Amino acid sequence: VHPRNPLNIGAAARAMSNFGFSRLRLVGPYETAWREARSAVGAAALLEQAAVFDTLAAAVADCTLVVGTTSIGHRELHHPLRRLEYGGRLLRRHLAAGRAALVFGSEKFGLSNEDLAHCHWLLRIPTREAHGSMNLGQSVAVCLYELIRQARAATAPPKSPAPATAGEVERFTALLIELLAASGYTNPKTAASAARKVRRMVRRLNLPARDIETWLGILRQALWRTART
Amino acid sequence: VHPRNPLNIGAAARAMSNFGFSRLRLVGPYETAWREARSAVGAAALLEQAAVFDTLAAAVADCTLVVGTTSIGHRELHHPLRRLEYGGRLLRRHLAAGRAALVFGSEKFGLSNEDLAHCHWLLRIPTREAHGSMNLGQSVAVCLYELIRQARAATAPPKSPAPATAGEVERFTALLIELLAASGYTNPKTAASAARKVRRMVRRLNLPARDIETWLGILRQALWRTART
Repeated sequence: VHPRNPLNIGAAARAMSNFGFSRLRLVGPYETAWREARSAVGAAALLEQAAVFDTLAAAVADCTLVVGTTSIGHRELHHPLRRLEYGGRLLRRHLAAGRAALVFGSEKFGLSNEDLAHCHWLLRIPTREAHGSMNLGQSVAVCLYELIRQARAATAPPKSPAPATAGEVERFTALLIELLAASGYTNPKTAASAARKVRRMVRRLNLPARDIETWLGILRQALWRTART
Repeated sequence: VHPRNPLNIGAAARAMSNFGFSRLRLVGPYETAWREARSAVGAAALLEQAAVFDTLAAAVADCTLVVGTTSIGHRELHHPLRRLEYGGRLLRRHLAAGRAALVFGSEKFGLSNEDLAHCHWLLRIPTREAHGSMNLGQSVAVCLYELIRQARAATAPPKSPAPATAGEVERFTALLIELLAASGYTNPKTAASAARKVRRMVRRLNLPARDIETWLGILRQALWRTART
């Protein structure tokens, strides 16, 4: 609603494209800002299809849920206010069945009380109280990320590299122990206890299978050099 | 690392301030960009305390975890790659015990292979494959939001307005039925079934307690007018 900065219009469009949203609607954008935004690179297709309306009522007429955004603190609110984590869930659920509008105000003033009267409830990005107001383009990106965020991905097992087998690890260990002896790091008296310590240390490295041949090559080369001197 | 656009440096600093992060470190920023960013308004204190380094190695020297960011697709990766939802959890966990660096590359090229070699693993914001590359300032905002995001807030009960009592709802219903009769909307023959239908409709409104007196006033006024005509 009434965006003033062409960079912010472009940034909103880019975030929409990044996260797979396609319907951008502008309410009374500043003429020059809107013209400049359309001539900028990036997300051009989305900006070309963007629709411009005179009033918020017209822009959201076909939506069954209208959610406003606010950084609050600065005025008395007559609406239920939801944190993005929870409000995002409600929005996602609604989007499965019907059309919803997520409304952002102008950079300078946010949404007016008249705009807010068209909203069912309000969404708040959980920023610090001491510095609550976010940049418009960034707040669009954060809200849309929450909408496409997959809760299950947060608990997925890490994709660690496949570990080397015990046999491979042992070949590495044997070569390392041989190198320690050849280079004079260990002496025959302490060799046995040093070997146990080295074996434990190597186990803690979690050598990946894909690196094992490289590591063995490094050790063989060092051993060969050490034996020659 | 090597940011080129002062607006992006400023946007990164603003998002950090919004979400409560204070240690901004720049590696070889473009001179003019860095100068311009510091002279801009917003997040000034954070930019003043920002430290500048010549190399990434120096910038992350005191960190026990270094995580790079990438939009991938464009090169072979030698690192475990984690979606933001999961990687963010690992980062949060690490931050409870030690210092971690979240590294962003330049707007044009992202992180170089040399930069990536300093990273333990990589983070990916789950953007669309067809348009994966995000604006720098926006990607900083999205990553930091994930770090301060509260999973529990996503399942918090909605803060709906307190509902009116059954007695209040019934006073409203009675007045409405009276108005329907007075205005000729219902006639004595169908009044009983109309009343049942109206009662069910009113129940579905979920009238909030705080609005009930206003609604009753509206109905009383309409009844008074109707009775006069």
